[in-house]
Amino acid sequence: MAKPHEPLNAECGLTLALEVMGERWSFLILRAGFNGVQHFEEFLCALGIARNILANRLAKLVQHGIMQREPQEDDRRKVAYRLTAKGADLLPTMLALRQWGEKYGLGVPSNPVLVDRRDHRPIAPIGIHAADGRQLAWADLLWLDHPQPGVDGGCAGGPGDGED
Amino acid sequence: MAKPHEPLNAECGLTLALEVMGERWSFLILRAGFNGVQHFEEFLCALGIARNILANRLAKLVQHGIMQREPQEDDRRKVAYRLTAKGADLLPTMLALRQWGEKYGLGVPSNPVLVDRRDHRPIAPIGIHAADGRQLAWADLLWLDHPQPGVDGGCAGGPGDGED
Repeated sequence: MAKPHEPLNAECGLTLALEVMGERWSFLILRAGFNGVQHFEEFLCALGIARNILANRLAKLVQHGIMQREPQEDDRRKVAYRLTAKGADLLPTMLALRQWGEKYGLGVPSNPVLVDRRDHRPIAPIGIHAADGRQLAWADLLWLDHPQPGVDGGCAGGPGDGED
Repeated sequence: MAKPHEPLNAECGLTLALEVMGERWSFLILRAGFNGVQHFEEFLCALGIARNILANRLAKLVQHGIMQREPQEDDRRKVAYRLTAKGADLLPTMLALRQWGEKYGLGVPSNPVLVDRRDHRPIAPIGIHAADGRQLAWADLLWLDHPQPGVDGGCAGGPGDGED
């Protein structure tokens, strides 16, 4: 076993990500954003979310740079919420979570199916790959410490039995 | 724009996944599980979580088949919580979220670094690939409807301008 008692590192990328995305509505708002939803009233309608919760979550997504507020060109009193590059970079996470839900929740792919525009074949399962492209399983992975002054290791934990 | 007003499909894999994983502690417990943590008191110590919340979240993860309770071999009064295959399949999601947090939160990789056991090189960024392995961006993707009786499309939303 690898360091089971070691305190999990508070500065881990996962912890930071969960500060904003560790909440059901954040992903659902993000999904709607990818779906082309941009305006407050549209999010309200699409998600069936309470007005005050939506306002709170959109503000948090804006605050964390995942969405940005833009006055609409034809009516500058209206505001559009658009995904930033940082927000769009959550796509692999969202699709991995969706595929997992499909695999274990429905047993069949959700509809519609996400395909490659070029050949209309469904995308591959989101997986873990080596730098050279080989697919990796948990057993192929290893945590390597890069000691930093004043920072404990242990973030996210390792597949097990240390260095080989 | 693709169908911005279409109701988002409640049966989407993402919605199902978020029923159990759309919560900060679920991912942190999962991370600890990957880290080799197995016992209630160890989770308590590793996560700094309140006892009642931990009990509630572990029960939910067991109920959803993400973890399983196993009596410990040397002391059958003690219970170990282990990731099931379904739970272990959340690894790509968790790593994608962690990498996103690293990219935008810290600016540097978390420590320790997850590497390929074979050559000790860091794993590749979790990305979206075509069936033939090509890397895909959002603009390369398309949602295709597979009409099913009584099921609306619109789940997760599409990259935009329909079929090419």
